[in-house]
Amino acid sequence: MVDKEQALAAHERAKGKIEMIPKVGVSTNEELTTYYTPGVAYVAEAIKNDKSSVVRYTSKANTIAVVSDGTRILGLGNVGPEAGLPVMETKALFYKKYAGIDAVPLCIDTTDEADIVKFVKNIAPTFGGINIEDIESPKCFRVVDALSNALAIPVLHDDQHGTSVVTIAALINALKLAGKNIASSKIVINGAGSAGLGFVRMLAYMKIRDVYVVDKAGAIYDGRQEHMNEFKDEIARFTNPSKRSGSLADMVEKADVLIGASSAGAFTKDMIAKMAEKPIVFALANPVPEISYTDAKEAGAFIAATGSSTAPNQINNILGFPALMRGLLDVGAVRVTYDVLYAAAKALARSAGRKIGQERILPDATNRREMVKSVSDVAVAVSQAAIASGSAKNSVTQEEQRVSLAAKLKRYAKIEGRVVGKV
Amino acid sequence: MVDKEQALAAHERAKGKIEMIPKVGVSTNEELTTYYTPGVAYVAEAIKNDKSSVVRYTSKANTIAVVSDGTRILGLGNVGPEAGLPVMETKALFYKKYAGIDAVPLCIDTTDEADIVKFVKNIAPTFGGINIEDIESPKCFRVVDALSNALAIPVLHDDQHGTSVVTIAALINALKLAGKNIASSKIVINGAGSAGLGFVRMLAYMKIRDVYVVDKAGAIYDGRQEHMNEFKDEIARFTNPSKRSGSLADMVEKADVLIGASSAGAFTKDMIAKMAEKPIVFALANPVPEISYTDAKEAGAFIAATGSSTAPNQINNILGFPALMRGLLDVGAVRVTYDVLYAAAKALARSAGRKIGQERILPDATNRREMVKSVSDVAVAVSQAAIASGSAKNSVTQEEQRVSLAAKLKRYAKIEGRVVGKV
Repeated sequence: MVDKEQALAAHERAKGKIEMIPKVGVSTNEELTTYYTPGVAYVAEAIKNDKSSVVRYTSKANTIAVVSDGTRILGLGNVGPEAGLPVMETKALFYKKYAGIDAVPLCIDTTDEADIVKFVKNIAPTFGGINIEDIESPKCFRVVDALSNALAIPVLHDDQHGTSVVTIAALINALKLAGKNIASSKIVINGAGSAGLGFVRMLAYMKIRDVYVVDKAGAIYDGRQEHMNEFKDEIARFTNPSKRSGSLADMVEKADVLIGASSAGAFTKDMIAKMAEKPIVFALANPVPEISYTDAKEAGAFIAATGSSTAPNQINNILGFPALMRGLLDVGAVRVTYDVLYAAAKALARSAGRKIGQERILPDATNRREMVKSVSDVAVAVSQAAIASGSAKNSVTQEEQRVSLAAKLKRYAKIEGRVVGKV
Repeated sequence: MVDKEQALAAHERAKGKIEMIPKVGVSTNEELTTYYTPGVAYVAEAIKNDKSSVVRYTSKANTIAVVSDGTRILGLGNVGPEAGLPVMETKALFYKKYAGIDAVPLCIDTTDEADIVKFVKNIAPTFGGINIEDIESPKCFRVVDALSNALAIPVLHDDQHGTSVVTIAALINALKLAGKNIASSKIVINGAGSAGLGFVRMLAYMKIRDVYVVDKAGAIYDGRQEHMNEFKDEIARFTNPSKRSGSLADMVEKADVLIGASSAGAFTKDMIAKMAEKPIVFALANPVPEISYTDAKEAGAFIAATGSSTAPNQINNILGFPALMRGLLDVGAVRVTYDVLYAAAKALARSAGRKIGQERILPDATNRREMVKSVSDVAVAVSQAAIASGSAKNSVTQEEQRVSLAAKLKRYAKIEGRVVGKV
């Protein structure tokens, strides 16, 4: 584990974690006439005559923007766009490393909702997809919903979509191990931010109704007056059918599943003791979970999981966003749908294989072979779901996809081996 | 020379001319804790506490955006942002190849002046500089002027600033060979677009007044009523002190220098025959010049130059923008000034060395050694001029700059050799 000074020094040496390199030469006369004048003018003209051909001749189809206004960076809150930049660089690096996607960090100097929407609309011609990242809620939901309606490229909100895919995948396997059926399980979610809304939207899609979301004001129910907004209204419509009120401690009684996307220390051992048999506890607050893995297990959790890499069952978003975007780009998906997200969650759950157990509910993201298989499995499922649900612009076979991704990751590994710390 | 089908096929194979690669690893636990959590959170916090430290810890200081709305792409006119993308990719490639700068193409879906200005302001936190490219005039001037006033990073308008640096450098050497003094030379410029305004602003800075700009309506003069705008008013203020009207054919009489930034075939042999002794003719229209090199020489040009690579004396903007941006970034310049641009032009003229002659008025951009020397010479001059004129945020020695650039270009050559067409 590095300390602050080491992290600062390493970042100062690197001066950025990604860089541009050429894919073609522009030295010889043939290269220059092909990629510069007059060659590139032929290409510009072809795209002018058929705008959709931009994905054939440019980097658009494999390039995304990672957009943040810096208002909700990691656990730090509103730190501004400059302070968000190193975080988005790392995100971009993961997109390339795990899915072969070129991602451009764009940290922007506005926190105004309409301005952010306009900004992303403006950059849409350049990119095959958009990753909205670390924008404060509930603004982020309005931004993502507006963009999803306006644009014909996928707008992925990792905090909402990616986290829900990975968490629901973990939940599918955890319930399987517990011998429980999700449709008859009581699920309590603590936190109504991006992740909380993402869980609710996914569970609503799955028609799971015995779900209760708790925020600082207690259980959210239809008709609650205090601390509501249009997204909490949406949560109220799809959860808590009997409109129960109460504290988190009240709601967890006899719950089969307790998921935290809230803050450090929000869960107690007493709460877990009050849950149903074989309780499942996901404590996802970062960097310090709602309850530690050890405490959750001691309190009786049949399966516990956290966001931390230091305990078993890390719910790691690396398992989600690269594969999701890969699958979306591979078929030119025009939007992110819950058909796609649920297919991704099921594929990720399956990808953990037959080896699942109480300390292994997801693929191991730190094992390169497992990670490559997982990304490939999930990307294929995403593409097939997009095709099936009519949100794909083009078709691809599973075999083509797997071969293409494997080639991209092999290329990355070679470049990484040759460039990082060597050139 | 490739044909259209070959150019399209090559672009389709490449699917983009640039890609992202990692500068650091994120595989081992040490790497992950350094560049992901918790390491990157320390960095975000440090930048939050001192916004200016973003250039120390991220890619910002060496990364620029190449922004176009697609309204004036090459000779094709308004083809839209998608069709502009392959052109901006090539521009980005040149920035990296010749100056080690990471450039991100951003082709945007708005042609509204205020929207473009707002867009660029929004992305400013992410970038160390902005290259405004292929935006129609006179909108581009208003955009560039507004941004230059608003932002504390350099906004380079290659069509205006870059072209003028390279052309004035060529003019300095051409006049030297002709044994003429620029202050007593009559200079006629055909075309009042981006390049034309750039020439006028540079010549005005140099206090050269015997200058005449001709557009489709004839000579521009103070008081002309037709086809004027605020930038032609600016041209009128700094040129044509005797307020002469007339056609291009009228104005070229006894001119020492004729520069075209207009359209194919605009100059005739007759016009050149009417010029003063040892006439200098720069016909810069692309891809077909105002008059061919051969015709200009036959008509008596002492020195002729075009934008074409197939004749001697190519006025190639590759000699300008990479070095300009390199020098600006190296000292964290807050704006582009004519102190800097004129210093760049003089340095580029000098960099051609003692070997200058009627068929060699600029360094040879196709000769790698000459090109590297030229970029280094010009970048150093730019940085020193920025420091001297107070527009630099930090200092650098010439030696540091040359060593740093040489390392960047060596690194690029290695990566190019290893990656292009091989990995």
